[in-house]
Amino acid sequence: MNHKAIGVFDSGVGGLTVLDAIRQVLPNEDYIFLGDTARVPYGNRTKQTIIRYATSCVHQLVARDVKAIVIACNTASAYALDALTQMLDIPVFGVIEPAAQRAVQLSTNQCVGIIGTRATIHSQAYVHAIQSIKKEVKVYGMPCPLFVPIVEEGWANSDVAKLVVHKYLEDLLKDVELHEDQMDTLILGCTHYPILKAIISKELAEMNKSVELCDCAQATAISLAKELQKTHLLSDSQLPGDACYLVTDDPVQFSSIGQSFMKVPPENVEHIDIV
Amino acid sequence: MNHKAIGVFDSGVGGLTVLDAIRQVLPNEDYIFLGDTARVPYGNRTKQTIIRYATSCVHQLVARDVKAIVIACNTASAYALDALTQMLDIPVFGVIEPAAQRAVQLSTNQCVGIIGTRATIHSQAYVHAIQSIKKEVKVYGMPCPLFVPIVEEGWANSDVAKLVVHKYLEDLLKDVELHEDQMDTLILGCTHYPILKAIISKELAEMNKSVELCDCAQATAISLAKELQKTHLLSDSQLPGDACYLVTDDPVQFSSIGQSFMKVPPENVEHIDIV
Repeated sequence: MNHKAIGVFDSGVGGLTVLDAIRQVLPNEDYIFLGDTARVPYGNRTKQTIIRYATSCVHQLVARDVKAIVIACNTASAYALDALTQMLDIPVFGVIEPAAQRAVQLSTNQCVGIIGTRATIHSQAYVHAIQSIKKEVKVYGMPCPLFVPIVEEGWANSDVAKLVVHKYLEDLLKDVELHEDQMDTLILGCTHYPILKAIISKELAEMNKSVELCDCAQATAISLAKELQKTHLLSDSQLPGDACYLVTDDPVQFSSIGQSFMKVPPENVEHIDIV
Repeated sequence: MNHKAIGVFDSGVGGLTVLDAIRQVLPNEDYIFLGDTARVPYGNRTKQTIIRYATSCVHQLVARDVKAIVIACNTASAYALDALTQMLDIPVFGVIEPAAQRAVQLSTNQCVGIIGTRATIHSQAYVHAIQSIKKEVKVYGMPCPLFVPIVEEGWANSDVAKLVVHKYLEDLLKDVELHEDQMDTLILGCTHYPILKAIISKELAEMNKSVELCDCAQATAISLAKELQKTHLLSDSQLPGDACYLVTDDPVQFSSIGQSFMKVPPENVEHIDIV
């Protein structure tokens, strides 16, 4: 049993969907969320830059004596998880492995699609994760760089979102069909995408495609709970836990955008400087 | 007469439209372009962060002995131009003042619209610049956060671009009409937007609006040439000048995205580290 907080790190606000999913599964834990909003987005940075940024952020969480770290960011999980795991002596969890596990369970056709930022897709991290679980599963990736600004503009239910979702899904499905495969599972491989889940489902239904969506936030929350239980790191508190938030840019803007990402909007947001 | 290079600074690739416009007006000058691609976009950062980032970048150009600096970025011009001007003993030019001058010349109705990133619009920098030239001009701003990713996705001529351009222009014109004004000039207040110039013109024509577009890249180039001539800082070389490029993230990605921003695509791209 361990009453220390869990550290949750993201490059910006997207990781709040992961924190939200984790709090639903583990409501009695305390959380410290760090959003590196001064340097967001990581999606178009090099591996070296991403490792440098993620390391400096995670050190801030370690200095606050957390018992475990969740990298609630697909790009940082893809590029920096190995480096961080080697560097730290507390457990570090990413979002890719749990989503890959869940997708392999869900797919009966052995064919999984993955949508995410350009960096996440180009990293091939989901391909490697999925095929190291079950090497015969075929994986099709599609970068969707417009999804994040659409979510942050509050346009998740607009005609723009519908058109853009249709365009990306059409391109992805064309690629799958070209190879005569049938994708039955689609990983939402970016922490912003749970906000677009409904419109993606609807668009797939209108295209007459029966595809199960695999949300990396939910998959990560379930996997984290199991791992912390196995290693006796869960708290035995019976009371609802607290969450506090650290950001590297404007706390007010973070609270404002963060509202649409969580059932419980972020409070206690503090600015910190990271060089 | 002065044979030193002109330093051109942007937070990313967008400033290449400004460099391109300047090179057309002053083809015999040498240029050093610095794109802070590791920390792009500045658009959602605080003033303090923007000044800190811009200062560190501009010092790199000064260390390379440039004769003048162009801040080829609306956000950095809005927030950091005054600080940089005070700090340096070479002339520093922004993109806002020239575009404001040009818009005031163009508008017969004394009513100017301005589109840009959220930070540029919220800074009110164009409102202040325009009204300090002619205080009776009314200014209407509209942040368009989806334009940059649309341009960078290569979708400037797509149905997505058309729908998004229509949506933002409609919102802007609604606001203008609500105040019973008639906007006859629209400033493209972001260095990415010249790429969308054609589709914005077309959309305005389809909406039966007679609006002159004022491109900050062109306006800056013309104003810079006049100022350098006035202060005897132009080169008297008769040969075409060179340009080299410094970026804080991946040079290959910069060259690849940069192609669509310039008539002469960026060569000699070098990575530099800025802390």
